[in-house]
Amino acid sequence: MDHIRVNRIRIALEAAHLDALVVRLPENVLLLSGFWPMIGAATLVFPQEGKSVCITPECFLNEAMAGLWEAEIRPYPFGVLNSPDSTKIVGDIVSEIARDKGWKRVGYEGSFSMIAPSWHSGEARVLNEQTRNFYEAIFPGCLLIDATSLLQTERRRKTEYETEKLRIASEISCFGLRTFELAVEPGISGVELAALVEREVMVRGSGYKGASRVRGYAQVATGAEESAIGYRMNEISTRRTLKSGDIALLELGVVADGYWADRTRARVAGQPSDEQARVFDTVCRAQAAAIAAIKPRATCGEVDGAARAVIEEAGYGKEFLHITGHGLGFAYHEPSPILAPGSSESLEEGNLISVEPGVYFVPVGGIRLEEDVIVTASSSEVLGPFPQKLA
Amino acid sequence: MDHIRVNRIRIALEAAHLDALVVRLPENVLLLSGFWPMIGAATLVFPQEGKSVCITPECFLNEAMAGLWEAEIRPYPFGVLNSPDSTKIVGDIVSEIARDKGWKRVGYEGSFSMIAPSWHSGEARVLNEQTRNFYEAIFPGCLLIDATSLLQTERRRKTEYETEKLRIASEISCFGLRTFELAVEPGISGVELAALVEREVMVRGSGYKGASRVRGYAQVATGAEESAIGYRMNEISTRRTLKSGDIALLELGVVADGYWADRTRARVAGQPSDEQARVFDTVCRAQAAAIAAIKPRATCGEVDGAARAVIEEAGYGKEFLHITGHGLGFAYHEPSPILAPGSSESLEEGNLISVEPGVYFVPVGGIRLEEDVIVTASSSEVLGPFPQKLA
Repeated sequence: MDHIRVNRIRIALEAAHLDALVVRLPENVLLLSGFWPMIGAATLVFPQEGKSVCITPECFLNEAMAGLWEAEIRPYPFGVLNSPDSTKIVGDIVSEIARDKGWKRVGYEGSFSMIAPSWHSGEARVLNEQTRNFYEAIFPGCLLIDATSLLQTERRRKTEYETEKLRIASEISCFGLRTFELAVEPGISGVELAALVEREVMVRGSGYKGASRVRGYAQVATGAEESAIGYRMNEISTRRTLKSGDIALLELGVVADGYWADRTRARVAGQPSDEQARVFDTVCRAQAAAIAAIKPRATCGEVDGAARAVIEEAGYGKEFLHITGHGLGFAYHEPSPILAPGSSESLEEGNLISVEPGVYFVPVGGIRLEEDVIVTASSSEVLGPFPQKLA
Repeated sequence: MDHIRVNRIRIALEAAHLDALVVRLPENVLLLSGFWPMIGAATLVFPQEGKSVCITPECFLNEAMAGLWEAEIRPYPFGVLNSPDSTKIVGDIVSEIARDKGWKRVGYEGSFSMIAPSWHSGEARVLNEQTRNFYEAIFPGCLLIDATSLLQTERRRKTEYETEKLRIASEISCFGLRTFELAVEPGISGVELAALVEREVMVRGSGYKGASRVRGYAQVATGAEESAIGYRMNEISTRRTLKSGDIALLELGVVADGYWADRTRARVAGQPSDEQARVFDTVCRAQAAAIAAIKPRATCGEVDGAARAVIEEAGYGKEFLHITGHGLGFAYHEPSPILAPGSSESLEEGNLISVEPGVYFVPVGGIRLEEDVIVTASSSEVLGPFPQKLA
């Protein structure tokens, strides 16, 4: 059990004058209870005082029992014939939990706008306009408070327990990075590379250091045009095959039991050109400079600036179009910290940030390198270190 | 361009007294415009009269131009340094579109509770409580109407254009089914099988009949306990390896440019037991009976009953725990039609439904077979037919 996390949440609830939190997004159930609730049909009630209660489809009872720290489990029938209406069941159980507690203010997830998928990644189960009405009905006489900011603030600073889980996700991502390194050669396509990487992540990651539900989401752009197209947040893998001298750019998200890693590698099939090598070296040095700048109390602007200065000095400043990095952990991207130019946001111990400078232009292609870096007591640590090689 | 779809939407808008629809979920942008908007940062305004307008991040301009039927495209900078706030930009553009139109009632996606992932499947971009406030600000003096039901009703009845796209998705799923058939043998694990299936879907599906963005989401349970665990909507692939006589149960979702297929196969490693063979034969016959019952004006209860009668007669009625099938198409699961016992809901031409009877118990394991069936003018068609073999 992550006592530090649970205590911090209690303190945050007290400070926000909340009597309880009620959450349903898989990422937040995980945050508050240790249980990654699979398809997202579980609800967790986390009171300011006393034990949490997890209301879960009974078909996920095994996973709930294995994952939950210290919570009462209330299973309910789901997805089988004659199951009662699940909204009604969950409502009845939550009403019963709240009865006689005298709760006046309850926090819920009103404003999440990007969410991590459940294990059933083909479909996310989201909150909608009925959710608020539903909560109003089951918490009569209670103010409903949007606790999105509270949850995101809590998520920003990882505990040691969480850091260890995130380290496992990053180490699992290395299986994919290694496969990518070995497989990039003339003749292979972007979709082939992406599939190979995802396979290694899932097959070798499942069971690694206790991780049980592991998936990779890989995207590989090939060649200068595909990889340098303006810049966008997601490569698109195609059947285009690598020619000698082409860049392959891998963007890899990995989820291990709800904890995320986000890695990027660029690699040339065959012999890199002099300019590709020069850009790669520049991006490596920019990333190293940013990582060296990461420590408690450094500002996000300083860290971004450290990377940007190296790239500008090499003459590629205009081709580094995006921010240097973003928070992550309970999702592939979290809204804070953001390593943006001029930002005065301060880093603190436990922040996890991607560091991902990149340079994009034809004919070199897109070259980006990305590591996930945790802020430690005095400096930083790259989770799941893995070599960076252009060829 | 799918004129039938566009005309039907116009008629539905008129019937609902809506002056325009504004949508943002990838699945609904696709429905109304032909463009599957990748990461979900595009907004489509579909007016009762005149051309639609698609507001899209400029990094997806190529995909928008290739996909959109007949819409004005308004690109905006997104994700690069110094991009203006995207909410503000989109708001300004929509305000400008609405200006002087005199719209009184605008429909939006207020109540979707399960959504299809974008191409960036590691993260879904969802509506939240701010969305309604945002729309209120940009449509002053206008009633905002939750158009979820209108959109879902429209989605229930597929056009010929859409059926052809869905047929492609189902045909692509066959690459995965074929691989599964060849790979199930003693010694292979669930995660290995899932990875092989996903690889074939992505690698062979990309480019197939013009499909450009293709992904499989495979889950494979192995052995009786894993595959028959109560029943749940998602198998969990593990590193457990198949022993001779073990069942492998594949659940496969496939998305091809936003159109979905949903298939299931069960296969035994080595020699099936007599009881496995008997259950498999029962499930095959149950599925065939349900498919034979599908035609316009048949009720969902009749179709479910056709499958259930076969399974009950064979003595496995208590082990067929779930409904016989569900709608799908613009998502992996759609809320209608639902092939449930006793349902009086009528089928009509253009409905696409999964037909997936299953029987689950130890020591046989879970045996389910699933096809996607479209209701035709007089009967039905299985999309992407593929053989069913237990071993």
